[in-house]
Amino acid sequence: MSFKVNGEVGACGGKLLKLSHHSNVVNNSMDVNVYLPQQYYKNSNDKPIPVIYFLSGLTCSPQNASEKAFWQLQADKYGFAVVYPDTSPRGDHIPDDPEKYWDFGVGAGFYVNSTQEPWKKHYQMYDYVHRELPAQLNEYFNKSGNAKVDFLENVSITGHSMGGFGALSGYLQNYGSKKYKSCSAFAPIVNPSKVPWGEKGFGNYLGNDKSAWAQYDPCELVKKIPNRGADRILIHQGSNDGFYKVQLKPENLVEASKGTSWEGKIDVHIVDGFDHSYYFISTFVPEHAAFHAKYLGLAQ
Amino acid sequence: MSFKVNGEVGACGGKLLKLSHHSNVVNNSMDVNVYLPQQYYKNSNDKPIPVIYFLSGLTCSPQNASEKAFWQLQADKYGFAVVYPDTSPRGDHIPDDPEKYWDFGVGAGFYVNSTQEPWKKHYQMYDYVHRELPAQLNEYFNKSGNAKVDFLENVSITGHSMGGFGALSGYLQNYGSKKYKSCSAFAPIVNPSKVPWGEKGFGNYLGNDKSAWAQYDPCELVKKIPNRGADRILIHQGSNDGFYKVQLKPENLVEASKGTSWEGKIDVHIVDGFDHSYYFISTFVPEHAAFHAKYLGLAQ
Repeated sequence: MSFKVNGEVGACGGKLLKLSHHSNVVNNSMDVNVYLPQQYYKNSNDKPIPVIYFLSGLTCSPQNASEKAFWQLQADKYGFAVVYPDTSPRGDHIPDDPEKYWDFGVGAGFYVNSTQEPWKKHYQMYDYVHRELPAQLNEYFNKSGNAKVDFLENVSITGHSMGGFGALSGYLQNYGSKKYKSCSAFAPIVNPSKVPWGEKGFGNYLGNDKSAWAQYDPCELVKKIPNRGADRILIHQGSNDGFYKVQLKPENLVEASKGTSWEGKIDVHIVDGFDHSYYFISTFVPEHAAFHAKYLGLAQ
Repeated sequence: MSFKVNGEVGACGGKLLKLSHHSNVVNNSMDVNVYLPQQYYKNSNDKPIPVIYFLSGLTCSPQNASEKAFWQLQADKYGFAVVYPDTSPRGDHIPDDPEKYWDFGVGAGFYVNSTQEPWKKHYQMYDYVHRELPAQLNEYFNKSGNAKVDFLENVSITGHSMGGFGALSGYLQNYGSKKYKSCSAFAPIVNPSKVPWGEKGFGNYLGNDKSAWAQYDPCELVKKIPNRGADRILIHQGSNDGFYKVQLKPENLVEASKGTSWEGKIDVHIVDGFDHSYYFISTFVPEHAAFHAKYLGLAQ
């Protein structure tokens, strides 16, 4: 397994690596960006550097969040790396929305493993982001055996919109194995089974069997997976976000958690005057960084 | 004079206003973004809020720097507003590079007043950014007479690449009237008369008379305009910037200042591993913000 380095860009005290590699599960070349903080280059850390995975929203490539979410200042402050996976496989041979609309198909993989034709050959984004990508990154960056970056164990996950769904869903599905130390989300789709974006995506990728949908839906998962104790989930949602009431509905997750061990442990902050853009994300990235840093053992 | 508000977006503690208005000097509608910091909304300032004008580089609209340079955190820290003008008039009726190449014409107004056909009807970007735009903003935002934002007097200027040239040129040309309190630049074209981008732009907009070029060229201006005393100019340049040695040549400005009252007062920092992108700009924005804040009377 190897990565091609398409760019190595100075950013704050570290570097943003623009990479591509072959994914076996997605059956395609995939782009991914990795920000390595100043601590990586200064060798100033005695433990391997932890990682935050940022899953992007509909239409986004690894570039959008790398350029606009401004995680790098926080990564340098606390000493974590950031991985920005793509939102789907890309290329002329990749099946796409027949109407070429942006909410499904290329740029809109929904971080699930498709079981349906013609999608299943390439749209295996769940296995890609939660399994294959971390394993390949670990093999590539820690070849020498002396792990400088911990892509596998001391990791957290977050994301925006469809990527906020992907983060919540992946966190909860892997909660039993303690794969992720913590999870947060920016304006996430929390209840994909019940909103138009999710119904279209799940209907196509997973078919009509709603039990297949339920295994990915955070509002179903909180009912089945017990909180180990004090774990919290942090969510921000802009009040001026045009998708808030139709597609995102963060209140549904709070409602679903009632009577479960997650009740009172999902903090949804509705923030006045913010929309769905990266202006919103970059504003609250410092708060999310501080949240994850605690779980990753990066005290300040 | 009025502005149309196309968007008002929550960003950090303040708001980004996406505006458009009619420019008389450019004979066209122009887009401009204005970031108003948290101090504007909290009415926590006793003096009018100072302004930093950020002039963008080739191809950029007001959106690029607004989204990627990440001035807003610094604006909130010190309490200044940021104005992001466009780089040229736009529209199908605006004359453009015959070969539609990106280094001239639409998106590449070079912040000069064109004297040549067919450019001069619209390409009056010097008068637009240094005269008309500040006056219109002042009239619009301070209608009530009680100025909350000082777009005219307590202002500084900076910019990137072609916009770094525009900032240096406008600062020096207006130095006698003390229009700008300070000037800095990110990877600026410092000697447009002697590099391909400048030769193409100046040749078309200003014609073949090199004396017309000299009135805009920072390397000529430092020889003619005496420094009042302690004023310094701050410049950052990435070592991995592909345009550094061919188009930008910041060393030419240091060389031109030798034997003048600017000698030793132009600080050019060549920063290792940085390129020409907004990753470079956003990394050094905090240092430029601190530099301007001193001149604007915003002590921290």
